[in-house]
Amino acid sequence: MHVAVVGCGQLARMLALAGIGMGVRFSFINDNAAPDTACVDGLGKVVVWNPGDSAAQLYDALGKPDCITVEKEQVSSELLQGLAPLCPLRPNVESVEIIKDRRREKALVVELGVPTSRHVVGVSAQEAVSALGLPVVAKSCTEGYDGKNQWVIRTAEDVTTFDAQENPENYIFEQFIPFDREVSLVAARNLQGDYIAYPLAENGHEKGILHRSVVPAPNVSEAMVAQANTYMQTVMEHLDYVGVLAMELFVHSDKLLVNELAPRVHNSGHWSQLGADTCQFENHLRGILGMTLGSTRVHGVAGMVNLLGCEMPPLETIGARASLNWYGKSVRPGRKLGHVNFVSDDRASLNAAMEEFRRRVPIA
Amino acid sequence: MHVAVVGCGQLARMLALAGIGMGVRFSFINDNAAPDTACVDGLGKVVVWNPGDSAAQLYDALGKPDCITVEKEQVSSELLQGLAPLCPLRPNVESVEIIKDRRREKALVVELGVPTSRHVVGVSAQEAVSALGLPVVAKSCTEGYDGKNQWVIRTAEDVTTFDAQENPENYIFEQFIPFDREVSLVAARNLQGDYIAYPLAENGHEKGILHRSVVPAPNVSEAMVAQANTYMQTVMEHLDYVGVLAMELFVHSDKLLVNELAPRVHNSGHWSQLGADTCQFENHLRGILGMTLGSTRVHGVAGMVNLLGCEMPPLETIGARASLNWYGKSVRPGRKLGHVNFVSDDRASLNAAMEEFRRRVPIA
Repeated sequence: MHVAVVGCGQLARMLALAGIGMGVRFSFINDNAAPDTACVDGLGKVVVWNPGDSAAQLYDALGKPDCITVEKEQVSSELLQGLAPLCPLRPNVESVEIIKDRRREKALVVELGVPTSRHVVGVSAQEAVSALGLPVVAKSCTEGYDGKNQWVIRTAEDVTTFDAQENPENYIFEQFIPFDREVSLVAARNLQGDYIAYPLAENGHEKGILHRSVVPAPNVSEAMVAQANTYMQTVMEHLDYVGVLAMELFVHSDKLLVNELAPRVHNSGHWSQLGADTCQFENHLRGILGMTLGSTRVHGVAGMVNLLGCEMPPLETIGARASLNWYGKSVRPGRKLGHVNFVSDDRASLNAAMEEFRRRVPIA
Repeated sequence: MHVAVVGCGQLARMLALAGIGMGVRFSFINDNAAPDTACVDGLGKVVVWNPGDSAAQLYDALGKPDCITVEKEQVSSELLQGLAPLCPLRPNVESVEIIKDRRREKALVVELGVPTSRHVVGVSAQEAVSALGLPVVAKSCTEGYDGKNQWVIRTAEDVTTFDAQENPENYIFEQFIPFDREVSLVAARNLQGDYIAYPLAENGHEKGILHRSVVPAPNVSEAMVAQANTYMQTVMEHLDYVGVLAMELFVHSDKLLVNELAPRVHNSGHWSQLGADTCQFENHLRGILGMTLGSTRVHGVAGMVNLLGCEMPPLETIGARASLNWYGKSVRPGRKLGHVNFVSDDRASLNAAMEEFRRRVPIA
């Protein structure tokens, strides 16, 4: 079995580390001239692809993989369309094409009757504010992640600034949701159509970047969990989606609103490496290889802290029920360089362990 | 952090797969001209060492690792003694030197007051039988594993055959123990001297080769577990042992007898990859790197089935609470090519899953 991954980042790395032990071989497509492929060094062949390059030559250079998957949203249509006739893409091209464009993703969610924030496209910020009222969130349709290329338009002055600086055609405008908290659902579907999900994670962000997740999300009713899974299954079945899909949701009083989707393993599922029978990386591979999906049972309560822009933490900060993941990337402020997973019998000791770690290892 | 491993087999592979995610780099010493280094291909540099080669050149060619460990018992003294002044060996040279020679290992166990079978060395089979009575087990002092180079001498004719074919100087003769079953203890000790152990595993062998383990071993009293841990700690502290050490024990009525030691991660601890908070491979690395040892808590009951001499099992045979490990070696009859781990809430369903797997995947 040979799986090629579009992308060379930490998600590709962790997919490979989960799969190599199972006997899967990997190769990686460096499709955006990323100078830094350190995450996947040694884990498989890396082949560079640039727009205009032949997909057939890429496929041969990879060594004719059995299937191709993605570790990120922004994959060029030219690349996807070029590879599709040569080799199964899992998830399929349509899924990636829709989810990578917030306009199409939002239209799909609405079409499927899944609750999401009100929004408008193809208008100026001024028109968006007239339609939705202040505040409004403007998100780049194709370039946003970790809060990048997002504006929160709170005042008339913000409107003027935005319209002067940005081309509103590239943005989707959403009603600002004063959400209580953000949760996410990570689920997998295999080639046969079987479905399995992890418990909802509660996610803490700082400056738009995920800092921590805890699982199961506290104070979530069974009804809410069922609701989130219904939304997820509705989307997956409509797209005939295969692999892991992540769904970020806002909790607003007792309602769930889908914020966005990611057609891949997700930072808020990293805890599963320590805290569940099967990690999300193995389940993504099981899904795309047509295997029985692995049990997502949680060992008590689990959590994760991202290591952002810091040196590798001193090894003595890793406790008996914690594990270190370090991606081997060069250190830059704010960059996701690793994470630490935690598991515990109860929330109080989980929180205490995570907080003590954060005190000892300041992250930037 | 850079760890070099003496050996290029599946244990080296699984150490690397556990460590790379933590940011540890690996290199491997191919010290017995093994033509097959497929297990570690891509996971780090492989450097060949032959008797007479310079240890200093080897150390440089590896890239000056921070410490060196072993994945096997039979490591040449010349290599160990050559590397020792250059770089920490963990476990230390004395531990490996003693355990690799059954005579020295047995003498140590006896010296420490740990129960083991009666035995004699430096005698003929005829003299051994006179001392111990029939039957007698003759084991090569330095070449035995998986039941290789072992004789069970049951009759006067066996005595004659043995003395005609073998040099008894190379053998240790042990009283044959009609044991009820074999269990093993896998434990880790770190640089600081902290100790942690997995529960006892019950092991099933066929033709001397481990076929299956289940954890915790059934029908074992707390007193027996405590006894085994006392034996293990006694040995580890005496040797100032660092890393994972495995101890095979015979259960004979309600007594435990130490059969043998292995100064490394062990096949009977593979279940921990799925069934425990921290697998034995990570705990070996934590130990030798001076980290806090990882929790060995078991997720219910766990088991492992070895894949011997068979092709990779069909992926549909891997259930939701099982995981496949495949080493990437060429298939040969009887060869350890992979294993499948199992986890469950109760013994009945664990046994059922393991037996169903064995029915569907015949192993040779």
